[in-house]
Amino acid sequence: MAINREPLVIGIAGGSGSGKTTLAQSILHQIGESRIAFLPHDAYYRDQADLPYEERVKVNYDHPDALETGLLIEHIESLKAGHSIDLPVYDFVAYTRSPETIRVEPKSIILVEGILIFAEPKLRTLFNMKLFVDADPDLCFIRRLQRDITERGRPLESVIQQYLFTVRPSYIEFVEPSKRFADVIIPEGGKNAVALQMVIARLKGMLDE
Amino acid sequence: MAINREPLVIGIAGGSGSGKTTLAQSILHQIGESRIAFLPHDAYYRDQADLPYEERVKVNYDHPDALETGLLIEHIESLKAGHSIDLPVYDFVAYTRSPETIRVEPKSIILVEGILIFAEPKLRTLFNMKLFVDADPDLCFIRRLQRDITERGRPLESVIQQYLFTVRPSYIEFVEPSKRFADVIIPEGGKNAVALQMVIARLKGMLDE
Repeated sequence: MAINREPLVIGIAGGSGSGKTTLAQSILHQIGESRIAFLPHDAYYRDQADLPYEERVKVNYDHPDALETGLLIEHIESLKAGHSIDLPVYDFVAYTRSPETIRVEPKSIILVEGILIFAEPKLRTLFNMKLFVDADPDLCFIRRLQRDITERGRPLESVIQQYLFTVRPSYIEFVEPSKRFADVIIPEGGKNAVALQMVIARLKGMLDE
Repeated sequence: MAINREPLVIGIAGGSGSGKTTLAQSILHQIGESRIAFLPHDAYYRDQADLPYEERVKVNYDHPDALETGLLIEHIESLKAGHSIDLPVYDFVAYTRSPETIRVEPKSIILVEGILIFAEPKLRTLFNMKLFVDADPDLCFIRRLQRDITERGRPLESVIQQYLFTVRPSYIEFVEPSKRFADVIIPEGGKNAVALQMVIARLKGMLDE
């Protein structure tokens, strides 16, 4: 697909369990995947092939240092310049980057999603539209709990420990303060039809401009 | 102008000095006043002709009881039903309702603005889109201070006293808790071009539907 103008870069941030992935999926569905290059920040977890497995599992995956944000920035810039990129694939079982990558072609919209994407000054400057999905922390925790137990088969106590020792401190230190850089804050993002329709209307308008 | 569908009711709330009036004015300007019936909540300050002047000045104008919200609700319902209404005119010098009114015709959009409009359950149910303009309280106070001193010639100490004794307590008790009913929260609403363009795109889309 030919692109006649510089792609729009849209960022969706928010805490774990806030509904940001649901919002991103709704945008992909309503605008069409053929028009969107989707870059989830968690595809950029660092390659840890040089670390023994016992060390890998101890890493704080909710801290900005766990992510290779420089590579994400390079990829956004390449897509904006009209070049395709090779999106890393993270192996969440082996706790390291998989040898595969996914070829992503330049599209009219670059959609970037992740809890920490507004916490990085250099990354932040690349966005044309910064959406922050907000939800009460108890509801976020309940959604994480249900997802981790039902979909990932994790024991209750391990979900609570990870929440208390990495998820919550990271939210307080990095994610919550980054909310002030958002252009729009979307409460209960996953089920907020009024906000979704506003975002979709603007994206469609920008694509037609 | 003929209306083919039920008018859309848009609410803009937020603290004093947050930039909500600027956002409302930008919407009026970009969509066109001919398509919008604009109802500022503060036009509905209660008639106080039966109170002596000394009593009128003591009223807490930042409290929900100072406003005749029932009449605003009636007016929104009349406009939705296709009838014109007579918008009250408040005399901010005499602290009571003026004998004049302004005839407002039904339009495609009914735009309601005020600090307390999401704090009233019955009013809240009437909105198709609830926008809350948010700003840091220090910046809101500075904007109020500049406006009251420059435009209204009020003494510094009186601005501070009103802020501490009515504006701030009312914000904490009524306005801030009403933020959770918003569909979208707009930081620094008056100068937030990204959010404004999103709202405008959605309103235009709804008008064309």
